[in-house]
Amino acid sequence: MARTSGSSSQKTGPLVRAAALRLFAQHGFAAVSMRQIAAEVGVQAGALYRYTPDKQSLLFELMQFHMEELLATWEEVDAGAAPLARLDSFVRFHILHHLDRADAVFISYMELRNLTPENFAQIEAMRAEYEQVLENILVACGGEGLGDPKLTTLAVLAMLTGVNTWYREGGRLDRETVVQSYVAMVRRVVGV
Amino acid sequence: MARTSGSSSQKTGPLVRAAALRLFAQHGFAAVSMRQIAAEVGVQAGALYRYTPDKQSLLFELMQFHMEELLATWEEVDAGAAPLARLDSFVRFHILHHLDRADAVFISYMELRNLTPENFAQIEAMRAEYEQVLENILVACGGEGLGDPKLTTLAVLAMLTGVNTWYREGGRLDRETVVQSYVAMVRRVVGV
Repeated sequence: MARTSGSSSQKTGPLVRAAALRLFAQHGFAAVSMRQIAAEVGVQAGALYRYTPDKQSLLFELMQFHMEELLATWEEVDAGAAPLARLDSFVRFHILHHLDRADAVFISYMELRNLTPENFAQIEAMRAEYEQVLENILVACGGEGLGDPKLTTLAVLAMLTGVNTWYREGGRLDRETVVQSYVAMVRRVVGV
Repeated sequence: MARTSGSSSQKTGPLVRAAALRLFAQHGFAAVSMRQIAAEVGVQAGALYRYTPDKQSLLFELMQFHMEELLATWEEVDAGAAPLARLDSFVRFHILHHLDRADAVFISYMELRNLTPENFAQIEAMRAEYEQVLENILVACGGEGLGDPKLTTLAVLAMLTGVNTWYREGGRLDRETVVQSYVAMVRRVVGV
């Protein structure tokens, strides 16, 4: 990493990530230049390069942060209770966590194509780790609808993340109604 | 529309749409220029403008074609049988139709942000029409898991379209296994 003055870097880092997230989500990774990101932060392009070596690193950092936060927050939320209570808790957690991070979720799915193979492999490993969390819960629930556990896991995750594509704050259904409906649907999918 | 020589336009149209689809899916709409699309087709930029007025029209045309084809193909597939047979048939149709059109599906979700408000409204109306097809089937099935029909419809569609994000030809599960697993899962979701 390039040398940075500690206090300036600490302030700039979160601002750079927030600006990059906003611009990538709005225009797509390939259409955004480092110069645009610098302008959005309100610094010169040179100052940006002191913080991050290139746009690829910035994209990877955003996706890595998203996955690390997802895994760490679930660790905190997970009460390690009985399997069925953990399943309900996971459904609630996944929906609300993703609704609160629409741009990061959008980028994490859409810009996988723009990661270098090495960076892609790292993000994929973290995604697999998260999928394994749900798969373990589904297996522990042992419902008669479990079927192929990996396939069922991916089907449930797609269903839950799909809420981000249509849910609007202040719309017909509030968050709690949505969460409870999905808790019931997921229970039925796996037959518990 | 600009004047075009019939035969040349008939040849160029599909080539332009195929090139635009490929480039938009790979790089994102905002990062692709008309010049790049022309180069991909193997014509001068001027020739491209004789076919289409601008990039926005091209994006809209791709999304419109995707939705028209989806709705028309379902009309053909739909045997109008008993509700439960129609539900199974819809699940099979949706998964296979989308797997065969990965780039178009990707663009249809990702580039909604880049449509003008007028074009967005038209695409949204076609999507609503397609959602209504499934909602009507779910209501006709009358399962005890129907819940809020619109919410259940969106949950099922997200689950089905999600197959595109992980399915790989020649992977662990073949198409038929995937289809049958989803048919069973969707039946359980709606309780039929």
